[in-house]
Amino acid sequence: MNILLTNDDGIYAEGIFALYEELKKIGKVTVVAPSEEQSAIGHAITLSSPLRVKNVRRNGKYFGYGVSGTPADCVKIAIRKILKRKPDIVVSGINLGPNTGFNVLYSGTVSGATEGTIFGVPSIAVSLATFTNPDFSFAAKFAAKLAKIVFKKGLPKGTFLNVNVPSLPASKIKGIKIAKQGKTRILETFHKRLDPRKKTYYWLTGEEIKIRGEKNSDIAALKNNYLTITPFHYDMTDYDFINELKSWKI
Amino acid sequence: MNILLTNDDGIYAEGIFALYEELKKIGKVTVVAPSEEQSAIGHAITLSSPLRVKNVRRNGKYFGYGVSGTPADCVKIAIRKILKRKPDIVVSGINLGPNTGFNVLYSGTVSGATEGTIFGVPSIAVSLATFTNPDFSFAAKFAAKLAKIVFKKGLPKGTFLNVNVPSLPASKIKGIKIAKQGKTRILETFHKRLDPRKKTYYWLTGEEIKIRGEKNSDIAALKNNYLTITPFHYDMTDYDFINELKSWKI
Repeated sequence: MNILLTNDDGIYAEGIFALYEELKKIGKVTVVAPSEEQSAIGHAITLSSPLRVKNVRRNGKYFGYGVSGTPADCVKIAIRKILKRKPDIVVSGINLGPNTGFNVLYSGTVSGATEGTIFGVPSIAVSLATFTNPDFSFAAKFAAKLAKIVFKKGLPKGTFLNVNVPSLPASKIKGIKIAKQGKTRILETFHKRLDPRKKTYYWLTGEEIKIRGEKNSDIAALKNNYLTITPFHYDMTDYDFINELKSWKI
Repeated sequence: MNILLTNDDGIYAEGIFALYEELKKIGKVTVVAPSEEQSAIGHAITLSSPLRVKNVRRNGKYFGYGVSGTPADCVKIAIRKILKRKPDIVVSGINLGPNTGFNVLYSGTVSGATEGTIFGVPSIAVSLATFTNPDFSFAAKFAAKLAKIVFKKGLPKGTFLNVNVPSLPASKIKGIKIAKQGKTRILETFHKRLDPRKKTYYWLTGEEIKIRGEKNSDIAALKNNYLTITPFHYDMTDYDFINELKSWKI
């Protein structure tokens, strides 16, 4: 199995290294990941500047390709330039922090898997639900297990899997829930501050998640200590509304 | 009607100015747009640096707020900090270039409308299908007309409209098609070049659209000189695959 591994926390992040260590037990892993952290980059691509690709070593050994771009750029250049043939699977992660609900729209980790899917490659995005003191070991093992299953079973055209792992010892994780994307809103605020020259600037902050008791959502399941798998597709068409819209006099 | 206007080509772009001129005839328009071009930024948000907001004048008159961030940042800060109350509608555009098929995933213009929708505000993204010699006048008039209709009729929760206008005189546009998001692939290549210091760099290029004869897609309809409206939602869950996935032994 030829595995393309990317992420959005950057090629030097802990999460991608932990995942690499597990994936190399089950296949040939090519790491193509952003040279720098690209969190909350969404599904951006780099058009207005060129991409640089450099060889990256970690722990004294060759590790992979660092790209001066986004996760989507990494998957594109990996498939079109770096790899001799399409990978059998794209794995993106392990992200530091969950990617659930609306957050997936901002997620570079998810966009790595989206881009793999656009190329027709079965893809998985993996996130660990903590921002501090991460222990990626269980999430990495699980991701490798799931990658093997996906490789064997395949995924429907245009579908990929978004995985969120609770930040708990394996024994405390209650099980696996196949969940839908939550619709819970994030309450954002902006801190207004003055810089040393008395000019105003704003920081996005105060993200507070309001759980509205949505059953079967990734957010609710994760909160209840389940590992969640959500199948995603990238067709954004709201088919339910098409006929109504056709009836409008425009 | 209180209208929030944003875009991804930047607050100094022609397209947003043309749209502003039409929208101000039908409501109170607040312009909050990126200070610089943000094309292909996807649904990125700015977390690792602060946002600056500056007043921008055009043609000697006050025009709006320029924000040192992405279209999603602009809508967030407009609703949370700049506007006294939620706008009645968010309009994003007019983008220079179409936003159809897979391209919508990379589109800052579309992400402006997505972000409005997340805030529960009816939203429209508008793009003109040309990269050269744009004439935004018809697209701007149409967008204002559609904004009025959307304001009156509303949109389902979580749904927004993605509009693509052919780059043709109004008389040559065949009509309006309510279309689905096309699935046609874009064939990307990377130019490999050497910089003056003989180091390699890559440019993303050679985007070629292969039409596979998809009926009712935005791409096909636009190619046939129709103006397209596609209803989008941001729930990426692939509900069709949930039961199949539940049957997997993971």
